[in-house]
This record gives sequence, structure tokens and C-alpha cells, in this order.
Amino acid sequence: MHVGVIGAGQLGRMLALAGIPLGMRFTFLDPAEAPCAAVAGTHFRADFDNADALAALAASCDVVTFEFENVPAKAIADAGITLRPGPAALAAAQERAAEKTLFEEIGIPVAPWRAVDSQPALDAAVAELGLPLIAKTRRLGYDGKGQRRIRTAEDAADLFAELGNVPLLVERLVDFDAELSVVGCRAADGEVVVYPLARNRHEDGILVRSETATFNTALQRQAVRHLRALAEALDYVGTLAIEFFVCGDVLLGNEFAPRVHNTGHWSIDSGGVSQFENHLRAVCGLPLGRGDLDRPAGMINLIGEVPPAADLLAGRDTFVHDYDKPPRPGRKVGHVTVTAADHVTLARRLDNLENQLKLA
Amino acid sequence: MHVGVIGAGQLGRMLALAGIPLGMRFTFLDPAEAPCAAVAGTHFRADFDNADALAALAASCDVVTFEFENVPAKAIADAGITLRPGPAALAAAQERAAEKTLFEEIGIPVAPWRAVDSQPALDAAVAELGLPLIAKTRRLGYDGKGQRRIRTAEDAADLFAELGNVPLLVERLVDFDAELSVVGCRAADGEVVVYPLARNRHEDGILVRSETATFNTALQRQAVRHLRALAEALDYVGTLAIEFFVCGDVLLGNEFAPRVHNTGHWSIDSGGVSQFENHLRAVCGLPLGRGDLDRPAGMINLIGEVPPAADLLAGRDTFVHDYDKPPRPGRKVGHVTVTAADHVTLARRLDNLENQLKLA
Repeated sequence: MHVGVIGAGQLGRMLALAGIPLGMRFTFLDPAEAPCAAVAGTHFRADFDNADALAALAASCDVVTFEFENVPAKAIADAGITLRPGPAALAAAQERAAEKTLFEEIGIPVAPWRAVDSQPALDAAVAELGLPLIAKTRRLGYDGKGQRRIRTAEDAADLFAELGNVPLLVERLVDFDAELSVVGCRAADGEVVVYPLARNRHEDGILVRSETATFNTALQRQAVRHLRALAEALDYVGTLAIEFFVCGDVLLGNEFAPRVHNTGHWSIDSGGVSQFENHLRAVCGLPLGRGDLDRPAGMINLIGEVPPAADLLAGRDTFVHDYDKPPRPGRKVGHVTVTAADHVTLARRLDNLENQLKLA
Repeated sequence: MHVGVIGAGQLGRMLALAGIPLGMRFTFLDPAEAPCAAVAGTHFRADFDNADALAALAASCDVVTFEFENVPAKAIADAGITLRPGPAALAAAQERAAEKTLFEEIGIPVAPWRAVDSQPALDAAVAELGLPLIAKTRRLGYDGKGQRRIRTAEDAADLFAELGNVPLLVERLVDFDAELSVVGCRAADGEVVVYPLARNRHEDGILVRSETATFNTALQRQAVRHLRALAEALDYVGTLAIEFFVCGDVLLGNEFAPRVHNTGHWSIDSGGVSQFENHLRAVCGLPLGRGDLDRPAGMINLIGEVPPAADLLAGRDTFVHDYDKPPRPGRKVGHVTVTAADHVTLARRLDNLENQLKLA
């Protein structure tokens, strides 16, 4: 199979590294000069909405997928490309009100929210929902861009203009116990594989750490039910992720990503079939592999620059993933996976690694 | 790190796929037009003993390693290349009498053997050692070429000429219980990681199946001791394998390979650090990762051609490795790894897979 990928960043790179052993070949579309996925496939350098490049991608590949949800769906459809996952998933993921509505329709609880299209509507939402709130542009931002917290009435005063006079979603800021996410994969025949819930920590809107949660079976059951419901509602094919806030014993749906996800990167090194390989198996019509783990796993993102591998490989259960990207403050340039015999040991080792990275 | 690899077959390919996540880049030297490792690195097309190509490889890479032991050691040394693993390992692996002598010196038991350089010496060895014997050319053959069994006196009559009038080693054919092998890795600082013993089956001199042996701790301890002794004697850096015959409760050393080995391929999918990644960690001066497994694993070679992946991926614990090589009878073109919760289940699933491949 020849797989086309829109985007050639680290997710495309990890997809290709997972697919080459299966005999797959990869072609990436990306405007960057030397994107980090190019080491493992052919690179078409063009803008994502370039009609000729999209047509060439469709002509040379058996299937086309993507590594980020903000792809130009119309240009892709105009090029006659059959995307996997398909347009329904993109439409829901690209517009936050559609996403929340879908969550509610399929029984995923969400925090109280309103779609607002003007400053008066924003003011009304503040009055109805109460504070604190978070306002987000309805069309996609990335890593916390296009979001603003509303803690006081003054925060909301000119916010609609400040966020660019674009459609917004305002939502109650929930007092959550933890941020969790679930990654799963659905095959074309409806088979679903779900990975263990992960507990995540973000700083400044960027994921810092993700680790398999101490397995709370009630929460895991909720997560599996929600992931199945979402994948089925979208007739989804491939890997997807849902991010939740956990409040007591309830998972509140925050958002989903119709793609492989940073909070499932530890699945590469855990002895099961990774989220990347399962995504490719799904979009290529192959049976899925297991997502359950033999041992707890977690990962720390490397942000800004990658320290020498020799400094990171403390302990025999450590795996370094260097995306081979030029260093830049705030950029995800790699991650380190740690596995351990138990969750306590895992947490201690991840703590040590985080401290080491802060001191470096 | 930029890693040069002499040879660009499936072992080079799997090395590169293991090293790219660590930020490594690969250049392969191989005379083939489109070798299967080229998908994951730069390919210098030249004969293995081409001095200019070797010099270019040395100039562009931080470290040079190899995927097969029959590399032209003199041409490599003349090009000023510092190979890892080094010339002592190659010298011992390329000459069977040197290999057996080394095994004896470091305490690895071997079957009775003689080096013979003439038909009269061969006749004398037959008389001294008794039948049955196996005669092998002392310089390397591959996958059973350059070997002949001696079951009767007539078999030996003109054998020295039949095998090409070259130095031979003759050895007692032992009545073994099983063929086992151990794969391990030694770092530049002397750290050693050893994988579980594997039980192997060859047909027509080609490995068909390899699976982690039901862990007999006494045999595993012998294997670890032998692997450590060999790696230390050779001041070895990288992954190596020793093939044994097991007779009762003793491991008899048959031969070793100074490289990643077909009987350790299941280590890619077992949740530890694979033999490929550990080889690269060693030759690049990085700490090693664990070789112990959370669950039993085994693999079946795909010989001749690769069936459709959909037919191979029965069960969620199955991993397909398609080397993307043109089909040819007798050629290793891929392998399938299976892991399972226990050895009985593993053996049954490998049996099923073998039967399926025979029926296909």
C-alpha cells in the first residue's frame, strides 16, 4: 500500500516508521522545506490546499490520511481524494460548537456552554453560565492559541473584538480533578481497539506529560463507551483521541482529535500495537492489534530542544524519540517514553526525568 | 549521529527503523540497485570492497557498522574505517577454526572437531572423531552453503575436492535435543544486556521459526555466561548472537554471529528495547535498554514471498514485517512476530501460522 499523508511533522514521521515494516510506502504533502517526516518517505513540497499537489497525491497513493485536523477539507474534496478518516470527523473536529453538540447527542457529558457570535451574546452567556468561563474561537486554534479565560466581568468586556470578531464558544471552567484522555482506533469493519486512559498535564497550553492512569475500571469503561459512540457516530476509520476532564467519577468531554494523538505516544514502546500502526491498519483495511499494555507507560514531551540522548536514557526502560526538528522555544521536538513494572515506580521515574529536564 | 552500514538488506533496514527515532541518520553501502534498506536512508551503490565508496562512507558517518559478517575486513581497514563491532570479532566469525578455538578458550563447550587441509587429513579426522560428521568450509558460507554431512566412509571419499580444495572444519554431528540461540548486546563501557534464549528450527539450512524458550533458568544462566565471556574476549561493542545445540542440560556452542540476528527479530515487538536499537545504542556509545520480555514472543520467517498482510494478522498480538524485497524461492522476505500471555498459547498460534503458510 502507498499511503499519502497531509502534513509531514512528527506525527507523519511516526506513522511512516510504524507503516514501513508492514511494507507500506509513504508520500507526504507539506509546504515546509525539510519536514521531519521526509526521512521516511517522499515529500511533495506544496501548500496544503494546492490543487495540483493534492491531485498528484491522490494519483500516487492508495489511501490518503492526515496528521492534523485543520486540513483544508474543501480543497481535498475538490481534488477527488477519499480521505480516511472522512469529512464527517473533520467537520466535527474543526468547529467547536459542532463538536460539543455531537458529544451531547451521543451521551458524552460536557460542561455548560454557549455558541456566541457577538459581544451582546457573549455578555448574555456570561450572565447565564456564571464565572469562571473560557472563551475559544469556534474554528480551530492549536496548542492554546485563540483561547481566553474569563474570571471577572471586565475580562469579558471587549473580548469578542479581542479574539478577532469571529464565532466563539464559551464554556464553564470546570474544577476538575485531572485531565485524562483516551486514544482508540476503529477499523473499516467496525472493530474498535481502545488504549488505557491516560492522565495528562499541560503547561501554557502544551502537553508536558502523559501516563497511563492507575486503572480505574469505572472510568475506563466510560472512556471506552464514549470512544465507541463517537467513532460509530462519525463512521470513523483510524485512530482518534478524546480529551476529558474528570470531575469526581464522571468524565466530561472537552474535545476530540481525529488523528493520532500526543497523549498516546507511549503506545509505541509498550509491547502492544501502537496508535500509529493501528491507524495505518485501519485506513488500509487491515485487522487491528491490541491496545492493552503489559506494564504502565508514560511520556514526557521534549520542548524547545532535545538534550543528548545519553542524558535521557537513564534506566533500561527508557525510549528516546527525537523528531529531528530544529530547536525553537515552545516547539515539540521529541518525547521520552518510560515504562515500569508498576505505577508508583513509573511516576517516580517520570518525576525524576522532569526534574532533570528543568535543571538542564 | 550519522551511522554507516555495510549492507542494505533487511537487517540494515530494521537497524535504520530502530535508529531514526533516536535522531540517527543512515547511509548504506551495497552493490544492489534498490536494496530494501534504502527506504530509510541514503544508499551508496558500490561493491563492498570499493575503496572510494568505503572512504566516502567513513567521511560522511560518525560510526560504521555492518549487517553481515562476511564484510571485506582488509578493504575496510585500508579505508581507515573504525568498525563497530571491531576486527577481532570479524576475524573470529569469518574462520570456523578460529571460532571453535575461541569458544574452547573461554569455556564454551563444543562438539569434537578438527581443522583439515587435505584429503588425508580429512580421512584421519573421520577415523579419530567417528561418524556421523559434518564438514564445513572454514571461510564463511551462508545459510547452509559449503556444508556436507558425512554419514558413511564413502561420503568422505572425495569430499575435500568436492568442497573445492579449501580449508575445512569437520565436526561430530551431535544428537541434540533442540537448537537454541542467545542474542545479547555489549556497550562500549562493558555493560551487557542478554535476551531470553530462543528455540529455533531450521529447514534446508534456513531459519523457519524462533521463539523464546520456556525459561529454563539453568540454561539461560549458561547462555548469559557464554555470551558475556565471548563479548568480553572480543572487547565486543554491539549486538551478537551465539547458536547452540542443547544436549541434555548442556549448551554446546555451534557458531556465533557478530551482528543482529534472525533469531532475535521478535525483540522488536516485545516491549523491551529491540536487538536493533541496542546495537545502535552500543555502537553510538549510548546506555543499553532492557532485553527481558513481559510475555513470550516468537516469529516465523516468510520465505519466498509475503502473503497479504490481512491474511497474516490473525489475532491482536500479531506483527507483520515485510522487507519489501522482490519474491524469490528460498529468500527471506519478511517475518511475522506473535506474542502471547503464555508459552502454550504462543506455540499453538505459531503452529497455526505455520500451517496456514504451508497451505497458502
